[in-house]
Amino acid sequence: MRQERTAFEPVYKQIFPFWEELPDTDKDYLCTHSRTVTYPRGKIVQDGSGCAGVILVQRGSLRLYMMSDEGKDITLYRLQAGDTCMLSASCVLEAITFEVFLDAEEDSVCHVISAAAFEAVSGRNPVVKIFALEMAVRRFSDVMWVMQQILFMSMDRRLAIFLLDESARTGSDTITLTHARIARYMGSAREVVSRMLKYFAEEKMVEVSRKGIRILDRQRLCKTGRV
Amino acid sequence: MRQERTAFEPVYKQIFPFWEELPDTDKDYLCTHSRTVTYPRGKIVQDGSGCAGVILVQRGSLRLYMMSDEGKDITLYRLQAGDTCMLSASCVLEAITFEVFLDAEEDSVCHVISAAAFEAVSGRNPVVKIFALEMAVRRFSDVMWVMQQILFMSMDRRLAIFLLDESARTGSDTITLTHARIARYMGSAREVVSRMLKYFAEEKMVEVSRKGIRILDRQRLCKTGRV
Repeated sequence: MRQERTAFEPVYKQIFPFWEELPDTDKDYLCTHSRTVTYPRGKIVQDGSGCAGVILVQRGSLRLYMMSDEGKDITLYRLQAGDTCMLSASCVLEAITFEVFLDAEEDSVCHVISAAAFEAVSGRNPVVKIFALEMAVRRFSDVMWVMQQILFMSMDRRLAIFLLDESARTGSDTITLTHARIARYMGSAREVVSRMLKYFAEEKMVEVSRKGIRILDRQRLCKTGRV
Repeated sequence: MRQERTAFEPVYKQIFPFWEELPDTDKDYLCTHSRTVTYPRGKIVQDGSGCAGVILVQRGSLRLYMMSDEGKDITLYRLQAGDTCMLSASCVLEAITFEVFLDAEEDSVCHVISAAAFEAVSGRNPVVKIFALEMAVRRFSDVMWVMQQILFMSMDRRLAIFLLDESARTGSDTITLTHARIARYMGSAREVVSRMLKYFAEEKMVEVSRKGIRILDRQRLCKTGRV
């Protein structure tokens, strides 16, 4: 067995439900067109028009976002260890005509399969194509949720949900992001976030200090977020 | 040949690229589980949680939109004669977890394939499943465009694009929609639309009267919309 096959197959076997249905030649082909890449924190993995390939996050965290002509961005979702990004191989899925950006939020280690190789294998194996499209449609659902949040929810509810999510994600009661960064994630303005945090602090739901935002009254925050 | 087959096959042959690859039994199956439905203008075709089936618009126009808890809605896209709606069969595509609403904007005639029948056939024929997923992903691209418009574009640009689109769609220089309706389509407020139209009128790009909004300076409107 080829050396690359030994390196990548254990991961691919777990992530790809179609793995055992592939002929051996295609398993080899995907593995020989894979590489392990380390992205330092802050690194731009894909800049909109690019097609970085199919990315399997092994360690760290990537952020997928869309960007306006003026450079304003909106976070669509994040990829953690174990997640697979198909939109970074949008050139494989012709039906995708929009551009997404990806950057590393933390130092991240990923396996990357070349888009061309994945495309070739998905052309030969309908199960692979179906998997890729289903992944994309699932993300469609995530994005619709973000959109619903941004368009329809009042700011207090959105901020409460954001703080609870972030606390769950980091396993800490204290959120150490700056107000500007929170605003960027939420597609809002720093002033709006600061004003709402001040209100939350007055209501004793959070405590805002130089160390960050500490959740004091989780129950009330949940009620505000209606979660 | 069954009677239903004769009724629906000519349309399905044109719309579905996979039609000739289907076994005769599945062609029959889809046709016997199809019906022709007339939706009067204003009729709600699907109310979020429903799964109306795969809808092929033959005449008229359907509007697909999402709705907040408070009843505010945002138009995602419209379906015209010749268009197929797969999101109305979201129960077929497990990966879709969000709710969409559909209503008839005009008196509309549609062929509707039962979601269960379509699901059964797509389970037996990967080409059908791939088609359904690709349709959904293509709509994903449309929705991302709407989202980009709403989140990132300034109001003057969005309104200019809306007026030009509407004029192209109806083949008329006069847009007869009310300001409130335009606002609803654009996910904005009536006051904002009226204020911007007043500005466009002052700039002699449009003329606003009881008859509607008439485009006077198409070139400048295109420039404002950057199209």
